[in-house]
Amino acid sequence: MKPLTPICALLLSASFAAWSQTPPPKPQAAPPAPAFSYSCSKELRDQLLAVRDAALASDYAWHQLEHLTENIGPRPAGSPQAQAAAEYVAAEMRKLGLDVRLEPAQVTHWVRGEEKAELVEYPGQAPETTQRIVLATISGSSATPAEGTTAEVVVLHNFEELTALGREKVAGKIVLFNVPYDERKALAGMAFEAYGEAVVYRGRGAKAAAELGAVASLIRSVGGADYRLPHTGYSVPAGIPAAALAAEDADLVEHLAAQGRVRMHLTLTPQSLPDATGYNVVADLKGSEHPEQIVVVSGHLDSWDLGRGAIDDGAGVVISMATAELLQRLHIRPRRTLRVIAWMDEENGGGGNKAYAKTHAAEFPNHIAAIESDAGAGHPLGF
Amino acid sequence: MKPLTPICALLLSASFAAWSQTPPPKPQAAPPAPAFSYSCSKELRDQLLAVRDAALASDYAWHQLEHLTENIGPRPAGSPQAQAAAEYVAAEMRKLGLDVRLEPAQVTHWVRGEEKAELVEYPGQAPETTQRIVLATISGSSATPAEGTTAEVVVLHNFEELTALGREKVAGKIVLFNVPYDERKALAGMAFEAYGEAVVYRGRGAKAAAELGAVASLIRSVGGADYRLPHTGYSVPAGIPAAALAAEDADLVEHLAAQGRVRMHLTLTPQSLPDATGYNVVADLKGSEHPEQIVVVSGHLDSWDLGRGAIDDGAGVVISMATAELLQRLHIRPRRTLRVIAWMDEENGGGGNKAYAKTHAAEFPNHIAAIESDAGAGHPLGF
Repeated sequence: MKPLTPICALLLSASFAAWSQTPPPKPQAAPPAPAFSYSCSKELRDQLLAVRDAALASDYAWHQLEHLTENIGPRPAGSPQAQAAAEYVAAEMRKLGLDVRLEPAQVTHWVRGEEKAELVEYPGQAPETTQRIVLATISGSSATPAEGTTAEVVVLHNFEELTALGREKVAGKIVLFNVPYDERKALAGMAFEAYGEAVVYRGRGAKAAAELGAVASLIRSVGGADYRLPHTGYSVPAGIPAAALAAEDADLVEHLAAQGRVRMHLTLTPQSLPDATGYNVVADLKGSEHPEQIVVVSGHLDSWDLGRGAIDDGAGVVISMATAELLQRLHIRPRRTLRVIAWMDEENGGGGNKAYAKTHAAEFPNHIAAIESDAGAGHPLGF
Repeated sequence: MKPLTPICALLLSASFAAWSQTPPPKPQAAPPAPAFSYSCSKELRDQLLAVRDAALASDYAWHQLEHLTENIGPRPAGSPQAQAAAEYVAAEMRKLGLDVRLEPAQVTHWVRGEEKAELVEYPGQAPETTQRIVLATISGSSATPAEGTTAEVVVLHNFEELTALGREKVAGKIVLFNVPYDERKALAGMAFEAYGEAVVYRGRGAKAAAELGAVASLIRSVGGADYRLPHTGYSVPAGIPAAALAAEDADLVEHLAAQGRVRMHLTLTPQSLPDATGYNVVADLKGSEHPEQIVVVSGHLDSWDLGRGAIDDGAGVVISMATAELLQRLHIRPRRTLRVIAWMDEENGGGGNKAYAKTHAAEFPNHIAAIESDAGAGHPLGF
């Protein structure tokens, strides 16, 4: 890929506060770098500085995010909120004068149902009592019967332990993978690695457990917040109920199971409805010299249902919207086409990106660069 | 009160880790204090040091807390768990050779029911959608009808705003006191003051709102955790439903109400059952010289129902149990009677302390000192 001037502008506008931040200390002493070390024309440099200053003074993205998260709310694929959000973003981009299309995509339509669990037998249990377990259904989950299912819980820490137990000791049981998220690794700047290590049990745990006859599969909620707020997410459908327990509930089950038999009553009633039609919002600001060449800036518009999708990924969408808004407001016309995309169904089935790949296959040689911002909206650390 | 040697022992055993901690820096330079500046005999000093060393090496309190919180679980007054916990603590104190009584008390018996809310009308609402509001019923709450109640929400920040609105604008509405907990004050070491400022709306908000005809009263959850985990607690019964919203949900309602009409559908079905009989555990280690003189070390055994009551106040109970355990294990006989008390119903009606005050009124002149540890089990900072 050859050096592309639109990238400079994208970098500036996507990282609103980047210039106001102190860079992290370098491990080795080095001469200070000039403010702009890449080669840009004087005209482009002036444009970049203008974009930076306008971005730092703008609350456009913030107000867009307010609307998406507070007025519209959670935006799971297939929901009326996802539809409303797509229409809203399209209208906002039209207001800016972009060429906007709502491009249909076949998307998953998963709806959370009841989700509750309680321990009904455990060592030291007080007579006539149970203990509530806090959990969140994950997307590949099948439903239990409406009245729930009751089984003994087997606590494991990796796939090897599952294999070692074998079908005889797993069949008919509820499996719990109690695998902690490595918070020290996250603190050391490797949060994605820490997440990746733990999230495999969310993705594949239920399938592995189902293959040995488990009646349900549970994981410890993936992530660093040790509050009693379990984290939902994607899992491969395995034909059995599947959920994430709050960290302290996972530990409770493990501690009690180490003392004797633990039985859980589990009720999860999610519905995997027939696929729905959702929409990617595709908004073009035509390039002045190479309109056929495309630079994508994007985020995904769908969210999970338990929160309001501010960080994952309203932020990515509004950063992308703001990129177009800044250029239009400053009357800066990129040489190549800037394409703002608000993707649909990133979280669950990936229907939006599949549809785009199909619809735009012929254009692919002209896709010069693309960004999807989906790692939160924290302090920008690099590009 | 004259100086009392048992206090030294209590201080040592109640603050397991106090001696291993670095003291906070003093604002003014001062000569270092001697390790023991109060006047104790050589024999007592040796005993204190032995208690300290044994306390630091002991996991007795930890294991007691494990049992209370994990095997028994939440222990609201009037519940079977509270009963089981009282019997357990009594049995453990008997094992240590203490003179133990389960002293009956008339306690509240409040049971949380269904608790859910959703915004059913708000500016920018997507068609066919509502927004879930996360909340926790507080103890003085009346129940809504089983099918819930729907009303417009009025957002306030203090009692003056309520008075200013008056009956005309409050009657028939749901009042929300969105009063943030002052986290900066808490960070500055004034967490109790910050809590006290915000908690008045939990205690008295419903009553004030009911007097002007409000159909329900909501508060912003009191405390510093800005996760979507609302904090329950005591409120004066006001004859209307009352609950605490998670901080972000309170802000959502406020932001939307600033744009236009917000209506909420609220369902809270708590039950205030007839008072039950609960028990204070009162366990005496008789004094060698003045058995009639009593030094109380105590915590409260009941907890709210949403957690497992480890910090509030399992910790206070097991610290008190450990005080007796250490003295017995080290064969240190206090001169006055050490009385371990696990109080019942501190959280809601205070039935345990009322019963004790009545039953033990004649002994009060001989109550030489008393501690109730109920501020968590963090780093000990003083005495």
